[in-house]
Amino acid sequence: MENQRHERGWDALMQINGPAAERLFEELADIAPDLGRWVVEFAFGDVVSRPGLDPRTRELVTVAALTAQGQWPAELRAHIAGALNVGCTPQEVVEVILQMAVYAGFPAAINGIRAAKEVFAARDSKT
Amino acid sequence: MENQRHERGWDALMQINGPAAERLFEELADIAPDLGRWVVEFAFGDVVSRPGLDPRTRELVTVAALTAQGQWPAELRAHIAGALNVGCTPQEVVEVILQMAVYAGFPAAINGIRAAKEVFAARDSKT
Amino acid sequence: MENQRHERGWDALMQINGPAAERLFEELADIAPDLGRWVVEFAFGDVVSRPGLDPRTRELVTVAALTAQGQWPAELRAHIAGALNVGCTPQEVVEVILQMAVYAGFPAAINGIRAAKEVFAARDSKT
Amino acid sequence: MENQRHERGWDALMQINGPAAERLFEELADIAPDLGRWVVEFAFGDVVSRPGLDPRTRELVTVAALTAQGQWPAELRAHIAGALNVGCTPQEVVEVILQMAVYAGFPAAINGIRAAKEVFAARDSKT
Amino acid sequence: MENQRHERGWDALMQINGPAAERLFEELADIAPDLGRWVVEFAFGDVVSRPGLDPRTRELVTVAALTAQGQWPAELRAHIAGALNVGCTPQEVVEVILQMAVYAGFPAAINGIRAAKEVFAARDSKT
Amino acid sequence: MENQRHERGWDALMQINGPAAERLFEELADIAPDLGRWVVEFAFGDVVSRPGLDPRTRELVTVAALTAQGQWPAELRAHIAGALNVGCTPQEVVEVILQMAVYAGFPAAINGIRAAKEVFAARDSKT
Repeated sequence: MENQRHERGWDALMQINGPAAERLFEELADIAPDLGRWVVEFAFGDVVSRPGLDPRTRELVTVAALTAQGQWPAELRAHIAGALNVGCTPQEVVEVILQMAVYAGFPAAINGIRAAKEVFAARDSKT
Repeated sequence: MENQRHERGWDALMQINGPAAERLFEELADIAPDLGRWVVEFAFGDVVSRPGLDPRTRELVTVAALTAQGQWPAELRAHIAGALNVGCTPQEVVEVILQMAVYAGFPAAINGIRAAKEVFAARDSKT
Repeated sequence: MENQRHERGWDALMQINGPAAERLFEELADIAPDLGRWVVEFAFGDVVSRPGLDPRTRELVTVAALTAQGQWPAELRAHIAGALNVGCTPQEVVEVILQMAVYAGFPAAINGIRAAKEVFAARDSKT
Repeated sequence: MENQRHERGWDALMQINGPAAERLFEELADIAPDLGRWVVEFAFGDVVSRPGLDPRTRELVTVAALTAQGQWPAELRAHIAGALNVGCTPQEVVEVILQMAVYAGFPAAINGIRAAKEVFAARDSKT
Repeated sequence: MENQRHERGWDALMQINGPAAERLFEELADIAPDLGRWVVEFAFGDVVSRPGLDPRTRELVTVAALTAQGQWPAELRAHIAGALNVGCTPQEVVEVILQMAVYAGFPAAINGIRAAKEVFAARDSKT
Repeated sequence: MENQRHERGWDALMQINGPAAERLFEELADIAPDLGRWVVEFAFGDVVSRPGLDPRTRELVTVAALTAQGQWPAELRAHIAGALNVGCTPQEVVEVILQMAVYAGFPAAINGIRAAKEVFAARDSKT
């Protein structure tokens, strides 16, 4: 069962964050490898890969939460990229962030848009 | 144009929160009626009623943000009810809240589920 | 000098929160009396009683911070009452709270207005 | 391995929160049983039961975090009780909460002390 | 009426943030121009330009909220500059930030002072 | 008595943060020297130097709170270094941060580990 959790989590993580996720495991390898394992097995294997919600909605709700919290800009950028990776359009990502102006205030929305702009530009420069 | 913003906002608000929203305007009427007007014209007329995202996704991302913030339980319950009002299933709402265990911690998810349970029970008792 | 800090803090505290503050000291007396002492000597004696800002502005900036944080409704109500005690008008308090809709989102402003309404009503019923 | 995680988590949970934890599983049973399972297997089986830190320190750091966050008063009370259950003294719990006045402000510390007072009183009334 | 909101908002924004605000509109122009429009029409046209509170107090309460939240350092610096632009003294800004040590903790106050120091130095270097 | 508070605070501060703390006083000297004085006299002299909890536990609960808040990365790094200075092992610091995955979410824990990695590396490079 552990193996299934790991495999399921790894597949979800690769679909959403792609090779960028591997940098996280390298970072954690010598100091807290169990945290990397929990990201795969718990966060992605138990939670994010659940069938009850489509991957696009899962990424958009994560973008909403990270925009409202405002404390984790690197994670916000990773999930904006993740939303695009699973098929969300840039416009959908922008709409989610704009809505946070209502529920978390204008600084949250403005910083969210700045994060989106950075992610969109990085992807455009690769094509 | 102001009239259009008001009308568009009112329609969105009634679709999402229904008669429950009217209590808010009564509360605000004698102390801060402009805040009630901004809820209609800005929050719902300018933002929530935008066409770029379907109402179901808009309510789910709002449930995500309010679960992660954890500070506004009344607003969280109102938007869990709102999600159901625009056609989300209870299971979808639960999935969004569960995902917050990863991004905002277990207390956020547990309190979100308690809010959902309360809203679901209140609706069941009416049918 | 300790005595001066205590006296200066106590005077500021009584001017702002009045007899309501005494309930706090009773609450803390048997479990954490030093916290009560720090409220008087540090919070009010060292900080709030400083001459560089008038008491009305000090209470309004505190109302702003507590509205934006949203986590401490009892403290928010105490400082809304404190703002009135040092001469702010109810309208000024309402303006400060409304402005938080921009910087902390609508749920913050709506809950702030609810707190203000409660404090204003309690004072009106006494007159 | 899943069984080991469950067993290890259940033992840790019972040691820390005792029968009070069972109410959580009853609450979650019909709406989100997987969240209850994750509490046992991930939160307590993977994380809290790790050998690298003694249970007393684990509960005190949790009390610190929940006091600083201020959003989850029920969880804070549960972990204040948990700290006592694993052998912390009331004085140690109070010291941790007082220190939060420095890192999260006086409202956080005052509300933390109120939570502790409630937990201590409930235990005293049982003896 | 829309035109009036826009004009009133623009005047307030220029008075408070000056040419620095224009950079925000450039940033938003190609990705979320409506957010820029809402900053002008809602945030500044509907809220910040209201007559019930003088501009100096409005900026000081905003500095207080942004210092306490701690998540938006760029916005904090912009409103520290804004407070000076509408006639607050550096000493008043410092007093507001110091008071946040009580309500949001020492890290909030220390980071607020660092932001103020940066803004004050940038202005001094221009004169 | 003021002198005693100052002396006691200074000793605690030097024990925990060492010469690194002096940079803070230099930063504050020309803009808000009283904040520096309060750090010594109140934060360290009144609170952190209290006898009711050993210095190692005090630093670990502070690391927990700062990891959960996520807003003050410089202060988090300073207290990770402080924990090591008073005798905590790197493994204990890592355990505290990992536990925050449960109570504040994975982004909090991941960013906490990144901070720890930076502090550990800086110390290793000095030896």
